[in-house]
Amino acid sequence: MSQPYRPDTARIEHVLDAVLQAPSTLSALAPFADYDSALQHQVIEAAGEFVGRTIAPLSRVGDEVGCRFEAGVVTMPPGFRQAYQAFWQAGWPALSHAAEDGGQALPMALEAVLYEMLSAANHGWTMAPGVLSGAYECLRHHGGQSVRDLFLPKLATGQWLATMCLTEPHAGSDLGQVSTRATPAEDLPHGASHLIDGSKIFISGGEHDLTDNIIHLVLARLPGAPAGPKGLSLFVAPKFLPDGRRNAGVHCDRIEEKMGLHASPTCAMRFEAAMAWQVGQPHRGLAAMFIMMNAARLHVALQGLGLLDAAHQKAAAYAQERRQMRAPGASQPSLIAEHPAVRRILWTQRAWVDAGRVLAYRTAIALDQARLHPDAQGREAAQRWCALATPIMKAAFTAQGFAGASECLQVFGGHGYVRDWGIEQIVRDARVTLIYEGTNEIQALDLLARKVVPDGGTQLALAFADLKAKGDDARRLDRVVELARRISWAAPDHADLPAWLADDFLRACALALLGWAGSCFRARPPAIDADRWEEAAHALQYWVLPEFEMRVGIMEQRRATVATKGQAQKAAAA
Amino acid sequence: MSQPYRPDTARIEHVLDAVLQAPSTLSALAPFADYDSALQHQVIEAAGEFVGRTIAPLSRVGDEVGCRFEAGVVTMPPGFRQAYQAFWQAGWPALSHAAEDGGQALPMALEAVLYEMLSAANHGWTMAPGVLSGAYECLRHHGGQSVRDLFLPKLATGQWLATMCLTEPHAGSDLGQVSTRATPAEDLPHGASHLIDGSKIFISGGEHDLTDNIIHLVLARLPGAPAGPKGLSLFVAPKFLPDGRRNAGVHCDRIEEKMGLHASPTCAMRFEAAMAWQVGQPHRGLAAMFIMMNAARLHVALQGLGLLDAAHQKAAAYAQERRQMRAPGASQPSLIAEHPAVRRILWTQRAWVDAGRVLAYRTAIALDQARLHPDAQGREAAQRWCALATPIMKAAFTAQGFAGASECLQVFGGHGYVRDWGIEQIVRDARVTLIYEGTNEIQALDLLARKVVPDGGTQLALAFADLKAKGDDARRLDRVVELARRISWAAPDHADLPAWLADDFLRACALALLGWAGSCFRARPPAIDADRWEEAAHALQYWVLPEFEMRVGIMEQRRATVATKGQAQKAAAA
Repeated sequence: MSQPYRPDTARIEHVLDAVLQAPSTLSALAPFADYDSALQHQVIEAAGEFVGRTIAPLSRVGDEVGCRFEAGVVTMPPGFRQAYQAFWQAGWPALSHAAEDGGQALPMALEAVLYEMLSAANHGWTMAPGVLSGAYECLRHHGGQSVRDLFLPKLATGQWLATMCLTEPHAGSDLGQVSTRATPAEDLPHGASHLIDGSKIFISGGEHDLTDNIIHLVLARLPGAPAGPKGLSLFVAPKFLPDGRRNAGVHCDRIEEKMGLHASPTCAMRFEAAMAWQVGQPHRGLAAMFIMMNAARLHVALQGLGLLDAAHQKAAAYAQERRQMRAPGASQPSLIAEHPAVRRILWTQRAWVDAGRVLAYRTAIALDQARLHPDAQGREAAQRWCALATPIMKAAFTAQGFAGASECLQVFGGHGYVRDWGIEQIVRDARVTLIYEGTNEIQALDLLARKVVPDGGTQLALAFADLKAKGDDARRLDRVVELARRISWAAPDHADLPAWLADDFLRACALALLGWAGSCFRARPPAIDADRWEEAAHALQYWVLPEFEMRVGIMEQRRATVATKGQAQKAAAA
Repeated sequence: MSQPYRPDTARIEHVLDAVLQAPSTLSALAPFADYDSALQHQVIEAAGEFVGRTIAPLSRVGDEVGCRFEAGVVTMPPGFRQAYQAFWQAGWPALSHAAEDGGQALPMALEAVLYEMLSAANHGWTMAPGVLSGAYECLRHHGGQSVRDLFLPKLATGQWLATMCLTEPHAGSDLGQVSTRATPAEDLPHGASHLIDGSKIFISGGEHDLTDNIIHLVLARLPGAPAGPKGLSLFVAPKFLPDGRRNAGVHCDRIEEKMGLHASPTCAMRFEAAMAWQVGQPHRGLAAMFIMMNAARLHVALQGLGLLDAAHQKAAAYAQERRQMRAPGASQPSLIAEHPAVRRILWTQRAWVDAGRVLAYRTAIALDQARLHPDAQGREAAQRWCALATPIMKAAFTAQGFAGASECLQVFGGHGYVRDWGIEQIVRDARVTLIYEGTNEIQALDLLARKVVPDGGTQLALAFADLKAKGDDARRLDRVVELARRISWAAPDHADLPAWLADDFLRACALALLGWAGSCFRARPPAIDADRWEEAAHALQYWVLPEFEMRVGIMEQRRATVATKGQAQKAAAA
């Protein structure tokens, strides 16, 4: 019944090419001087082909068979290892990695598009290579020569996979509570420097049979390290040592039973005198890992969009098959695609995917600009955009990925609740994206309390000014900036105000940006399928953007309340 | 880790007793002359005790083991049959049934409370007796003497269970497309009158081992019946015939694999010359079944509230255990219950449950008043309230049940996504309530297109006037009535307008009523736990009710657009 997801490469390319002019922007960066539309087209077509043919058909078996755990060993669902071997051998994991490491040295934007398609096709499978590029960048920039020699080449190509071992039972959002220990040891083989002891949970891909080795990046505390997040150091502990023997202290104790994502083993890892190599400076482990934060969060945002696109594809196809009841004015049972309630659901998701891609791809381009733009001002502007847009998109796109997939399920009626159509799997899989890589509530605090309030909204105002928005789009962006200023003024006297307003503020930013992004692609509609862009624009105006005023109203109501209280307190004190 | 749900009987009784004065209202109805607070307390306490002790602990095993299907036979999860036997032997299914049939002749309101607690405790188990009272009422009012003699006594006590066989593969929301046939036959044993042929899907409890017999109520078409919904007749086809032999033409072909509700077998039923008895008039089958519609939809609304209450219980308990990060002003990691984002989630669900109960229990009381009120005006007012409030609550409370349970999952962070805490089960189970008993989109059409527009909103205005709302509550209700009038005026020229606005209209009604209900309990707070009512009231004002203006704005924007278009067209035609 259920058709696997097919990457809509034409629509994706349209956003990159016509809306964002990615080829000219990227070719202005020295390493991408040869980048053009033809190359972009070639890579995206080939990626879409690979994803549609090799990865998407494994989504169902991944959910139904799932991962099996026995005596410390994880067996992946049927077909997964072969698909992964084909993936790395074709060079896909190395798309953005440096040529000197065997990579293809292409822009991050193409990697982002690849991972959007992969997540849409098979979220569970995609978790396995999900942190690979982050681990590669981290070792490349922070690893010493011997660590790079031992691990970098095979991580660069994806022949080996990696994990990020951060979370512990009592340290989730709050990594300051990490208690895993790293003890310096001498005379270890292969130049290993430390022994690691501790338990980590929620480690995606902590153990599997996709690759011949797994490289764990582990946050741990050195003897005498300060308490809190600034006492954490970073280590590499491989499953197999350079001589091919097992690193005897690395154990997988169990995998979690989860709501979804059954094809991704979520491992409880135990390190017992596990041999490890230090990466970067002592106590600077979190900083070394945070280098990959923006890219990782952008990828999660794109998972939200990808899953939403996959759900929309299924629901739109079903709505063109199923007849139930007469739509207004019809004399016979209509296709459910004719019913206004179904249209609203489908058009709304279309709007989020189309406008969302404009924002996400713009950010992916900015990731490269932040490193490679020829002038400092350009690098700074790109960095500013990434810092602010990333938490907004991570929270807003994953929230919509889940809620929108659930609305698409609704299009199927009772059939949506049974497994056959694959839509309920998307809802279950998507739910985790609101949680990992920093919960959406953490994203909101990161945005308002860490990035906006401290400078009174100055960087936000600069980032929004770069958009050159007009009309209603400019009005919404201006109102957010004005609110940022007022909240910043009030914050010193009301320490909890940013925390109370963070979710609404992030949401208002997301909607203001979405409105702008919608105008951008409306201004450059694709030659084909013009109707579908009109429908998305309609949904944006009528159903999506009205939430903006509601969010602003919620913030104004509370800000006014505390302002009044503050004045009353001052008056009473005077 | 996970604690089973415990019915919060004090809070439930407070709404019935102090907020709604149920004892005095109900004792004004002749059959309940003896009903008082003490009796109400006794029944609710005993129900809470039974639900908490016997039903709630089976929720997890119901999800994990689920129902097993083999060769036409369904085996329920361990403990389910014993729990059901205890349930009916204690008299719980017969709570509202007539004394002459062996029932306890208590008000529907108590039955509603019982089913809210049961659903919260174990949604899957509760599906089994879910349609029992409806089937009982249907046979009692529409069955002939022989049908009543054969089936009513054991349905009245719940010794046997029942199903409603409506949906077919191509007839879901649209029952007019039902194609199951009923052929009159003579000389059948036990006075059976027809043979049924056809396939039904999504039949909850179509086959199980909870009871010794299952009575199927089947919608089918007599020879020469008119097409559409007015050609459907109702039949009874039991699993076992009165002589104890199997009704050879009744088959269960499979059970569905579903997103949740694993403890409820969703059966594909095949009737092949199945022996059946006609119930009620030919071609009036839908009308006979619709007698139970309001009660059934109210029960689904209460499932939404019950599941939300259960999710809130889990999240609130977890938030009092887990420490992560410092809340504003704290110097050490705080309980997550101290973080504003978590407070917002918890308080908001509290608001929906508390205010939602006021509306739901008011409706449950009105179900009895509609039948039993001493004067015609009282019966009419109660009937009006039920007709209008039921679709509103069904859609709004189930939507919040799912979305709110998902927010409660978020409180657990990554732990919410794994099975151990039971919160993800609630999210999966709750999802179906937005679909069954008429999808939420069907509820919205029922409200606006069937019940409001045809009389220009007159009945809605009368129902809202009965609430004697004041201040902001009155303002919101008045605005909905005004909108109903304007939409009704525009509808003749814009046939699709009600369908486009239905979801927003229902939502605006729900919020207006929720605001009123919130004021009602705020005006009569319970002696204990006063803080928690303040928190709910806060959430209602700051975070829930602002959506009202947004919904009104969405409707006004579209209504204005079509009005302008209409004038332009008229001007052009003139």
